[in-house]
Amino acid sequence: MLSANRIKLIQSLANKKYRQKYNLFIVEGIKNIKEFIYSDFTLSKIYTIEPIEILSEDKYVIISKKELNKISFLKNPSNALAIVEIPKPELKKIEGKQLVLESIQDPGNMGTLIRLADWFGIEQIICSEDTVDIFNPKVVQASMGSLARVNVVYTNLEIFFRDNQHLPIYATDMDGESIYQVELEQEVFLIMGNEGNGISDSIKNICSKTLSIPRFGEKKKTESLNVAMSAGIILGEFFSQKEKNERKN
Amino acid sequence: MLSANRIKLIQSLANKKYRQKYNLFIVEGIKNIKEFIYSDFTLSKIYTIEPIEILSEDKYVIISKKELNKISFLKNPSNALAIVEIPKPELKKIEGKQLVLESIQDPGNMGTLIRLADWFGIEQIICSEDTVDIFNPKVVQASMGSLARVNVVYTNLEIFFRDNQHLPIYATDMDGESIYQVELEQEVFLIMGNEGNGISDSIKNICSKTLSIPRFGEKKKTESLNVAMSAGIILGEFFSQKEKNERKN
Repeated sequence: MLSANRIKLIQSLANKKYRQKYNLFIVEGIKNIKEFIYSDFTLSKIYTIEPIEILSEDKYVIISKKELNKISFLKNPSNALAIVEIPKPELKKIEGKQLVLESIQDPGNMGTLIRLADWFGIEQIICSEDTVDIFNPKVVQASMGSLARVNVVYTNLEIFFRDNQHLPIYATDMDGESIYQVELEQEVFLIMGNEGNGISDSIKNICSKTLSIPRFGEKKKTESLNVAMSAGIILGEFFSQKEKNERKN
Repeated sequence: MLSANRIKLIQSLANKKYRQKYNLFIVEGIKNIKEFIYSDFTLSKIYTIEPIEILSEDKYVIISKKELNKISFLKNPSNALAIVEIPKPELKKIEGKQLVLESIQDPGNMGTLIRLADWFGIEQIICSEDTVDIFNPKVVQASMGSLARVNVVYTNLEIFFRDNQHLPIYATDMDGESIYQVELEQEVFLIMGNEGNGISDSIKNICSKTLSIPRFGEKKKTESLNVAMSAGIILGEFFSQKEKNERKN
């Protein structure tokens, strides 16, 4: 049985203010919850409508479908909901490729970017402080468990880049050099900017290169690609060049 | 003023049955509508809350914001709505790269795929008959005007491929050859499959190659990439190889 207080607590976690107050966020669906069980995250409570075979019975609470519907943030509630502790943010060693996000606002885009990073083995994403909160339920859902594996930190990017100058900084933009014409270094900061405004001038000024995906269709007509799609195509080209260079050597 | 009948007609176009009956579909937003004005589509009626500077005044009807809200399919209605004629479907000459979609169901994915085709200069998309209707309002919206430039046809894919054997057929799958290891031909049919089930066995059997995007992250953990994202990364690699070959020659 779920107490009224518990329901109120869970519902409050839709709100960033309460996530920060209680240091908790919500993960839904057994498949996603398992990713967090196998990670370094601490699960404070699991509510499920069916047994979870990888856990002993004292590790979860069986609730009714009706109760789950009451606490779920999803339009179509899944089969389980976990309350997970927000870990202390920790910047990991800067090595390899680092994805940097400036002012990404859309939760769906953010979730997709986390999934992409996970797919391409990028272990860390560095976000400007005004980027959408990764513990927003929509981001957690869109990241489909990848959030359990990618380290995401929020910071003041200008100060961050003042202190971290050992890697080249690549901006992305509509008017940069074609990714297909540039020799891409593999250990870089790759910055993706806000959905509407792109990367701010102050950050652009410190970038060593600006990259674009060339349009092959009729010039100037197609709307620019979505930020997550652009990141996917650009990361794809990084790995394309990496594999080709490895074959050459 | 919008008559009750007219409102009813417009609202009915949310439904495929009525789109087919009247041979009409809806485009919203002046920006999108302009793309159709500049295309071969025939606009039967334009309702707008403000003058459209590229058109003479007899080409559109000014309505109130309240009226627009009544006929719009969008959560946040834009500034204009056009009723556009569905053109007679016509298969254009098969040349260059042809995107083939089997049973794509999600309107957002479909719209993104049309935008991608437009970006990469792919002029035609061939869809299985059970692929989501491109004149579905959500597809039209997600394609952001690209629908005005990309030719989309629906057909029985098995019969289609029996009659069109002059290009190699590439399938995409989780267990194919790495796109970074294969020499990609440029004139091909590239097939993307259903969101949940991928490409059907009967179509897979006639493919000359099966392509995958390799996971660079921890193996077997990340959820497979969304179909539109996969198409973007794979198309990116086609153009990467094309540009590199052109530079070599």
